[in-house]
Amino acid sequence: MTLQAGFIGYGFMGKAHANALARLPMFFPDVPAVERHMLCGRNEERVKAAADRFGFTHTTDDWETLVESVDVLYNLGPNGLHADPSIAALERDVHVLCEKPLASTLENAERMVEAARDSDAVAACAFNYRYVPALRLAKDLIDRGALGDVRHVRGSYLGDWQADADHPWTWRNDADLAGYGQVADVGSHTIDLVRWLVGGIDDVSGRLATQVAERPAPDGDGSRPVTTDDAYVATVSFESGAIGVLEGSSVATGHKASNTIEVIGSDGAIRFDLERLNELEVHDADGRGYERILVTDEDDPYGDRWWPAGHTIGWEHTVVHENYEFCRAIAGDGGDVVPFSEAFEVLRIVDALVESDAHGERRSLHVDD
Amino acid sequence: MTLQAGFIGYGFMGKAHANALARLPMFFPDVPAVERHMLCGRNEERVKAAADRFGFTHTTDDWETLVESVDVLYNLGPNGLHADPSIAALERDVHVLCEKPLASTLENAERMVEAARDSDAVAACAFNYRYVPALRLAKDLIDRGALGDVRHVRGSYLGDWQADADHPWTWRNDADLAGYGQVADVGSHTIDLVRWLVGGIDDVSGRLATQVAERPAPDGDGSRPVTTDDAYVATVSFESGAIGVLEGSSVATGHKASNTIEVIGSDGAIRFDLERLNELEVHDADGRGYERILVTDEDDPYGDRWWPAGHTIGWEHTVVHENYEFCRAIAGDGGDVVPFSEAFEVLRIVDALVESDAHGERRSLHVDD
Amino acid sequence: MTLQAGFIGYGFMGKAHANALARLPMFFPDVPAVERHMLCGRNEERVKAAADRFGFTHTTDDWETLVESVDVLYNLGPNGLHADPSIAALERDVHVLCEKPLASTLENAERMVEAARDSDAVAACAFNYRYVPALRLAKDLIDRGALGDVRHVRGSYLGDWQADADHPWTWRNDADLAGYGQVADVGSHTIDLVRWLVGGIDDVSGRLATQVAERPAPDGDGSRPVTTDDAYVATVSFESGAIGVLEGSSVATGHKASNTIEVIGSDGAIRFDLERLNELEVHDADGRGYERILVTDEDDPYGDRWWPAGHTIGWEHTVVHENYEFCRAIAGDGGDVVPFSEAFEVLRIVDALVESDAHGERRSLHVDD
Amino acid sequence: MTLQAGFIGYGFMGKAHANALARLPMFFPDVPAVERHMLCGRNEERVKAAADRFGFTHTTDDWETLVESVDVLYNLGPNGLHADPSIAALERDVHVLCEKPLASTLENAERMVEAARDSDAVAACAFNYRYVPALRLAKDLIDRGALGDVRHVRGSYLGDWQADADHPWTWRNDADLAGYGQVADVGSHTIDLVRWLVGGIDDVSGRLATQVAERPAPDGDGSRPVTTDDAYVATVSFESGAIGVLEGSSVATGHKASNTIEVIGSDGAIRFDLERLNELEVHDADGRGYERILVTDEDDPYGDRWWPAGHTIGWEHTVVHENYEFCRAIAGDGGDVVPFSEAFEVLRIVDALVESDAHGERRSLHVDD
Repeated sequence: MTLQAGFIGYGFMGKAHANALARLPMFFPDVPAVERHMLCGRNEERVKAAADRFGFTHTTDDWETLVESVDVLYNLGPNGLHADPSIAALERDVHVLCEKPLASTLENAERMVEAARDSDAVAACAFNYRYVPALRLAKDLIDRGALGDVRHVRGSYLGDWQADADHPWTWRNDADLAGYGQVADVGSHTIDLVRWLVGGIDDVSGRLATQVAERPAPDGDGSRPVTTDDAYVATVSFESGAIGVLEGSSVATGHKASNTIEVIGSDGAIRFDLERLNELEVHDADGRGYERILVTDEDDPYGDRWWPAGHTIGWEHTVVHENYEFCRAIAGDGGDVVPFSEAFEVLRIVDALVESDAHGERRSLHVDD
Repeated sequence: MTLQAGFIGYGFMGKAHANALARLPMFFPDVPAVERHMLCGRNEERVKAAADRFGFTHTTDDWETLVESVDVLYNLGPNGLHADPSIAALERDVHVLCEKPLASTLENAERMVEAARDSDAVAACAFNYRYVPALRLAKDLIDRGALGDVRHVRGSYLGDWQADADHPWTWRNDADLAGYGQVADVGSHTIDLVRWLVGGIDDVSGRLATQVAERPAPDGDGSRPVTTDDAYVATVSFESGAIGVLEGSSVATGHKASNTIEVIGSDGAIRFDLERLNELEVHDADGRGYERILVTDEDDPYGDRWWPAGHTIGWEHTVVHENYEFCRAIAGDGGDVVPFSEAFEVLRIVDALVESDAHGERRSLHVDD
Repeated sequence: MTLQAGFIGYGFMGKAHANALARLPMFFPDVPAVERHMLCGRNEERVKAAADRFGFTHTTDDWETLVESVDVLYNLGPNGLHADPSIAALERDVHVLCEKPLASTLENAERMVEAARDSDAVAACAFNYRYVPALRLAKDLIDRGALGDVRHVRGSYLGDWQADADHPWTWRNDADLAGYGQVADVGSHTIDLVRWLVGGIDDVSGRLATQVAERPAPDGDGSRPVTTDDAYVATVSFESGAIGVLEGSSVATGHKASNTIEVIGSDGAIRFDLERLNELEVHDADGRGYERILVTDEDDPYGDRWWPAGHTIGWEHTVVHENYEFCRAIAGDGGDVVPFSEAFEVLRIVDALVESDAHGERRSLHVDD
Repeated sequence: MTLQAGFIGYGFMGKAHANALARLPMFFPDVPAVERHMLCGRNEERVKAAADRFGFTHTTDDWETLVESVDVLYNLGPNGLHADPSIAALERDVHVLCEKPLASTLENAERMVEAARDSDAVAACAFNYRYVPALRLAKDLIDRGALGDVRHVRGSYLGDWQADADHPWTWRNDADLAGYGQVADVGSHTIDLVRWLVGGIDDVSGRLATQVAERPAPDGDGSRPVTTDDAYVATVSFESGAIGVLEGSSVATGHKASNTIEVIGSDGAIRFDLERLNELEVHDADGRGYERILVTDEDDPYGDRWWPAGHTIGWEHTVVHENYEFCRAIAGDGGDVVPFSEAFEVLRIVDALVESDAHGERRSLHVDD
C-alpha cells in the first residue's frame, strides 16, 4: 500500500511534516509508504519552490482539487481553514491529520467531529507533544499507578516570540482570523497534555490578558490593534480531585519554548520541560528527591528506532512519531492518535476559559451543569 | 539602650527568633542589644527547659504578665492567639513582632491594625522571606526598572510535610483553630512576596482542596477530619496589568520548601527557589537566557555582614535579617519591616481566595467594588 | 554534480551517515546531491538488508570494489580498517570521510596523512562534535576574544555502556583490534575539541585503567580478558599557558554521553554538556554567573536551516552538519572539515597519554623535544 | 567543665570559629562550654576591636602568653605560624585546632605530628568540609557499599578571588610566606575529601601554573611577583584501583566556591557542589539518573540540631559542626576530628604534586617506593 499525501500549508508545519514523511522509511519501515504527492498554497511561485524543497511532485492553489487528488490530507493552514477542507476530505474517506487547535470556533469544531464520526477515514489532530518519549514514559508511570492519586498539576507554555512590542502584527493577533489567542495556540497543547496525563477536567477559571495592545503592521505602515490575548492563566480542577494551574504566553521574555508539565501525586511525581525534551524528572515517594532520567534507552518509547542510549533526539522527532502513529492508524495497525472528539474537548475548555474570564466566574465542563 | 524581649511560643519559631537575637551582637552590632528576658508557655516544665536552651532568664504561663514585663513582644503562638496579646502590648507601647498570617480572622486582623495605628510602638509582621538577599536583589532590580513592565508572575510554596496521609492531624487542619489552611499558612508568604515585588493586586480567583480528608488523631486514637484546605491554586491580576498564578500545598510529594517566585517583565525576568536561597536567576532581555547569580558578594544585601563571596548562608539568616530590621525600626533608624496594615492586606487576599472558591467567582480586591 | 557514495560499515555510524545524506537535500540544498550508491560489508544477508533500509542501490563484500565504484568513501569500519581503504581511495582521488580515531596505530595514521597530502581529494576525519551549534558558538566566542586568555580547561566524556561488568567483550576491549581503548575512543573526541577550541597542546600526563579486567565472551562461552583501558584521566598544558584535565570512561555508572567541555578564561568562560546539546552556558566576567543559552536562534550556527527558535535539534544533526561541511569541501565551496593532519595530531596525543602512563612521566608534544 | 579558648588570628577564620563557639550552647548543648577567653594578634587596636566583636574577654600580642593562658588553642594564623604555637600548646597538653594546610613545610608538619603523638591533648586540623551534612551522607553511602567499587573520582575547588589580575598581591602569592600556593590552599581541602571518601592514594601527577605573574603591591606602590601557583591540575590513582582528577584555582572566572566532589562506583555514584551545600546528587545503578536530595531531614547528619526539613543551612554551619566534634573529642566523647597525622598525609600529597610538576614525573605516595 502506498498512500498519496496532500498538504495545505508549507510554512513551519509543512516543513515539519514533510520531513517526518521523508524519514519514516528509514526509521519506521513497518508503516505504509506515503508519497508527498501534492502541495496546496495560494502563491504559485512559493508553493512550487516549497514543493521542490519538500519533495512534492504536484502543486495546486485549490484545496478542493487537493482533496480529490490524495488519500491523506494534512491540514496545516490557519485555524479558520481547518473545518471545510477537513470535512470535505472525510466525506470522501480521505484520512485527515489536522493541526491544532481543531478549529477557530466551537461550531466548526463540532462539525468536524460529526464528519469524523460519519467517515471511514482516520481523523486525527496534531497534538505532537504526546509523542515526546519522556512524556510517554510519564504517561506510563501515571497509568500504572506509580504516582498514586494525582493531587497537583502544573502546565505551562511560555515563549518570547512576540515579547518584543515591536514584533509585527500577525493573523494570530486578530480575533476574527484566529478565533482565540494564546489560550488556544499554546493553551490547547497544555490542556491536551494534562487531560491525556491526568484525566477529565471538572471546571476551570481563566484570566486572559493582552499585554501588547497594538503592534506594527506587517507591511510596516502604521500599527494594528491586537484583539486576541497574548497571555493567559487559569486554575483547573480534575474529576479525580486534583487541582492545578495552567499558563501560557507569547510575550514572556527569557522563555523560548517553555512547555512544562508537572504532575504531583500521593506516591510520586514527574516534571518535564520541552527545552530539555530528552529528560524526565521522576520522584518516587519511597525515595527523596527527583531523579533526572535521560529517556534515550533502547526500551524507552521509540528508543529502539533511533540511536544508542545517550544520543538525544530533537523537537522534530515528535512529529515523526506522530506521523508514524497516524500511518499505523491508517493501516489499521493500532496507532495512538488524537481523535477529533478529544481535540474538540480541548477547544471546549479553551472556550470555557475565555467565557470564565469574560464573566468573572468559574466554568464547569460538565455537559449537564 | 537595652531592650527586654518576651516570646509567646518556643517551638520552631521560638528557636529561630531566639537564635536570631543571639546572633545580632556579633554580626549586626549597630542595633540596640535585646535581652531574651521572658518566655511564655503553658507547660511549665517545657517552657523552663526551652528558656534554658534559648537563653531566657524568666518564664511565665500568662501572656498578660509577659506583656507587662517586656519592651518587645514576639508573638509566635497559634494564629488564634495573635490578636489579644499583640493588641495588649501595643496599648502599652510595647513593640510587637507577630508571626504570619496576621490573625485567624479578618476581624481580629482589623483590630490589630487599629491597635498598631494608635500605638507609638513598632508593630511588624514576620514575613521573613522579604529578607532573603536574593529576593532583595530581585526587588532592587524590579524597583529600578530592570525588568520593564511586569507581565507574568508565578508564586508557589509547595511542601510535603503532610504529604503522607498517615501524618497526624494538627491544629492547622482545623478550621476553628487555624482559621484558614494552606491558603493562609504558605499562601500568605507567597501573596506577601508578590505584592511586595510587583505591587497591588486587582482581583483573584481561587480553588482550594482538601486532598487528605482525615488524619490519625495526634493521640493515636482514631482519626479526625481535616476541615481546612491542604492545597490551593489561584489566578491573580495586578493593578499594573500583570497576570499570574499562585499555588500552595502541604501534601506535595517531592517538595520540601519549594517557595518559588518568578517575575517576567517586558525587559527582563527573575526567578527564585527557597531551596537554593543563595541564588537568583536573572534574565536581561538584551541577553539571551537566565544568568544564575550567587548572591553572596560583599555588596549584595547583607553581604558585608557575613562571609566572603561564595560562602553561603542558610534559612535562619532570613530571620536574623528580619530581627535586625525590626530592631532598627525600634531604634528609629529606618528598618524595613512589614507593618500590620500590609499584613492585613495579605489576609484580605487570603480571604478573597476562600470566598472566590466557595462562590465560584473571581473576587475584586478594590474596596469600592 | 551528483556524487556516488560508498560506505564501509552499516552499524550505528552507517545509519547516522546514511540518515545525514538523506536529509541534506531538504535542509542543505546548496551542496551537491550525494547518492547512496554502494554499501560494503562481510555478511551478505545483513549488508543487503541494511542497504535496503539505508537507501543504497548496490552492495559488495570487497572494499577494493567499493573504492573503485564511488566518488566518495565513508570509512566507518573498525579502527584497524581505516588505513588501507582510505589510502586506496585517496590514491584514486576518491574523497574520504573516515571515522575517528584516524587509525589504530600511529604508523598507519601517518601513512594516511601522506596519502591525503598527495591526493586531490578531500580527506576528512569525522569529529562530529565540532558541528554542535553550541560548541560552534563557543568557538566563535573564544576566537573573537570574549573569554580573554584561556586559563583552565576541562574535557570529559563519561559513559556507562560497559559499566556493567557483565556487558560482553567487544573488539574495543582488545588491544590488537582496537589499538587503544577509551583513551582513543572517547579521548580522541575530547582531545580534538580542546585543541580546536583552545589551541596547541604542550604536554600531557596520563593515567589509564582497566577497571573491568575480563568480560563474558560475546558468544556466551566463558570470558575474555580486556587488554585496553576502559577509563583514563590526564593533565594537559596548552601552548597558550592554560592548564586542564581530560577524562574518559566507558564504565562510569550514571553517565550516558557526558561529553562535557569547560573553558575558563581571564574575561569569561563557557561550559557544555552533550546530554543538553542545545545549550551553552556562558559567563562574562563583566557579569556575575553563567547564563544558560538555548542555541536555537535563527542566527545561531545552522539555526536558519532547521526550526524556529526554541525547537531543539538532536545528536544526529551534528552528523548532518558534518556531512554538509564535507560536501561543501568536495564542491570547493569552503567546508569546515577536520583534515587528516589534525586527526593525526589527536592520535599523537592519545599515544603520548599511553606512553606517559606506561613510563610514569609527562610527555612533551613538541616534535623537537 | 568549662574550657578557656584562645585564638591566634581574627580574620575570616577567627570570625567563623568565634561564631561557632557562640552557637554551640543553643544547638549542641551536649558538649562542654567553651569560653572565648583570649584573642591574640599583633595590632593592638584591631585585636581589641575584634575581641569586643567576637566575644573575647582578653587580648594579647604574644602567642606564648596565649598558649599559657588557655585550655584550647585555635591556630588560625598564616601557614608559617602553624607549627611553633601548636607544638608549644601540645607540649602543655593544651588542645589544638589548627587551620589547614597543616604547615608551610613538610618538616614543620612532621614536627607537629610528633608533638601531637607525645601529647595527651586533642590535636585536630580544621578540614571543615568533612562536616557538610551532604558529604557525611555521601561518606555513609560509600562506607556501606552503596556505590560498590569506586572507579572514578573528581575533586575540584575553583574560585575567582584573584581572577582579576588587578587584585592585589597577598602573602598567599609568596612562596616564602605561604609555602605552597593553591595546590595547598584549596588543594588540601580536595585531597582531604577524596582520601576521606575513597581511601588511600597510590600516586599523583601534578601540573601547576602561575597564570597571573605579578600583582599590584598591597600598598599600591608598584607590583610584586607571584611566586606560588594560582592554579593546579592533577591525576590521582587510589589504592583501591580508582583513578581521578584534581583541580584547583583562585583565578577561575565565574566560580565563587566551586568545591565539587564526584565519586563514581560500580553500583552507584554521588556528586556534590559546595555552592549548593544542602544538596547531594545520588545515582543508584539499579535506577537510571541522579536523584537530587535535599539533605535537611531530621535523620540526616546533624539534621535534628537545626531546623525542620527543607530549611537549609549555610557554610558557617560546617564550622559549627567541626567545633562540636572537636569539643566532643576534648570531652572524650568520641568526636570525629582530623588528626594531625592525616593532615600530614594531605600535605605530603601536596608536596608530591609540586615535585611531580617540577620533575615531569608521576610520584608514588608509598613510603617504601
